[in-house]
Amino acid sequence: MNGTWVPRLVQVRTQILKENDRVARALRARFAQAGVTVVSLVSSPGAGKTTLLARTLAALQPQGRVAALVGDLATDYDAQRLAATGAAVRQITTGTLCHLEATMVASALEGWDLSQLDWLMLENVGNLVCPATFDLGETLRVVLLSVTEGEDKPRKYPPIFHTADAVLVTKIDLAEVVGFDRALFRQHLEAVRPQMPVLELSARTGQGLDQWLAWLGSLRGWPRPAAAQCLSQTPLDAE
Amino acid sequence: MNGTWVPRLVQVRTQILKENDRVARALRARFAQAGVTVVSLVSSPGAGKTTLLARTLAALQPQGRVAALVGDLATDYDAQRLAATGAAVRQITTGTLCHLEATMVASALEGWDLSQLDWLMLENVGNLVCPATFDLGETLRVVLLSVTEGEDKPRKYPPIFHTADAVLVTKIDLAEVVGFDRALFRQHLEAVRPQMPVLELSARTGQGLDQWLAWLGSLRGWPRPAAAQCLSQTPLDAE
Repeated sequence: MNGTWVPRLVQVRTQILKENDRVARALRARFAQAGVTVVSLVSSPGAGKTTLLARTLAALQPQGRVAALVGDLATDYDAQRLAATGAAVRQITTGTLCHLEATMVASALEGWDLSQLDWLMLENVGNLVCPATFDLGETLRVVLLSVTEGEDKPRKYPPIFHTADAVLVTKIDLAEVVGFDRALFRQHLEAVRPQMPVLELSARTGQGLDQWLAWLGSLRGWPRPAAAQCLSQTPLDAE
Repeated sequence: MNGTWVPRLVQVRTQILKENDRVARALRARFAQAGVTVVSLVSSPGAGKTTLLARTLAALQPQGRVAALVGDLATDYDAQRLAATGAAVRQITTGTLCHLEATMVASALEGWDLSQLDWLMLENVGNLVCPATFDLGETLRVVLLSVTEGEDKPRKYPPIFHTADAVLVTKIDLAEVVGFDRALFRQHLEAVRPQMPVLELSARTGQGLDQWLAWLGSLRGWPRPAAAQCLSQTPLDAE
């Protein structure tokens, strides 16, 4: 890349981020006014965002009103899977874009009355890099890391861990078979984000789901079972 | 994103890609002249690129001269791991950039006499989206997909499958425990890239490694064991 391109690219990227931040701020204000708690999920492809979301939407609905927006380059497979839970779900397809942007979220919400919702879940494109720098106006961002991906990912992909509020270690039922080293993972995470809240779970076996759901409940001030406290090494209050 | 930004972004992106393509073309000519076969690996984070590469470098060295460049946002962990094989290895750290670019490869090669190499392996940043559009001048590009990521990834991330020459289905030793459905995966892949060559392997157990190594050998015109033919549904000749 020669000297001609770099300054212009940086300039344009900065402008896009500024524009994204402006839209994200407006979204955040709108979410707060409507009283909806917005939780976004980011991870590598195949870490289990959609499976977790399916179980989450199904579990939350008896308690509250929940909807979801799901991002992918192509297909509406995830929206179809999630709609089966009975929740309101919309797919955002990004084409070749590696992340969701605030304007996409704003467009996808058109026609929805946010004041009728307790939770809005956002599933980003599977990518451990690009979504880091794009604020979507979410209340909290959660990064999923499956045990099959290896313990060193926080150190190799620091920006996404810097911009998330909590880590879900997914597919924990496979920890033994893949030789996942918890202590080593905690050491890598601690080096990047000291005291970051961590919850281990398996959407397949259900391990850890109660704590996850209790934590989501606690974001809306619902009674918090003692079991859920393992997630909170540090306060996780919404902005 | 309003109308002001989009046209400028597209213009700048096009220029960057053009510049990348120009550098990649020069690299490809240089590789051909030096007689080095360049194979790049792309995948999600944690699909097993580095583990496969470690076994590959170790196995190829008695037969030929091999070097590697490895990309990550941060750390030189991968270069350290791979250097233990005795091969020449250099780390490229990309900061927040989600892919390698041709100029990074060119810079990382400085001081190396390519005519002294048979193979040069390139490991891209763990990302199933961004690396798709950046030609690195490689002879062949191989996309790794681990069985833990799910069967539908070719349909959800089509560009990376469109720009790769073969698929390695990794962690095949976990296929049963995660319930990986081969037929369903083939169906999704066939819809995106009909007749794309596929090899199943496990860098941990060694399953499929002989075929992989035989295939790499065949790229340099070495005798090709019959077992390796399972990778080649279609010709895999270098450009």
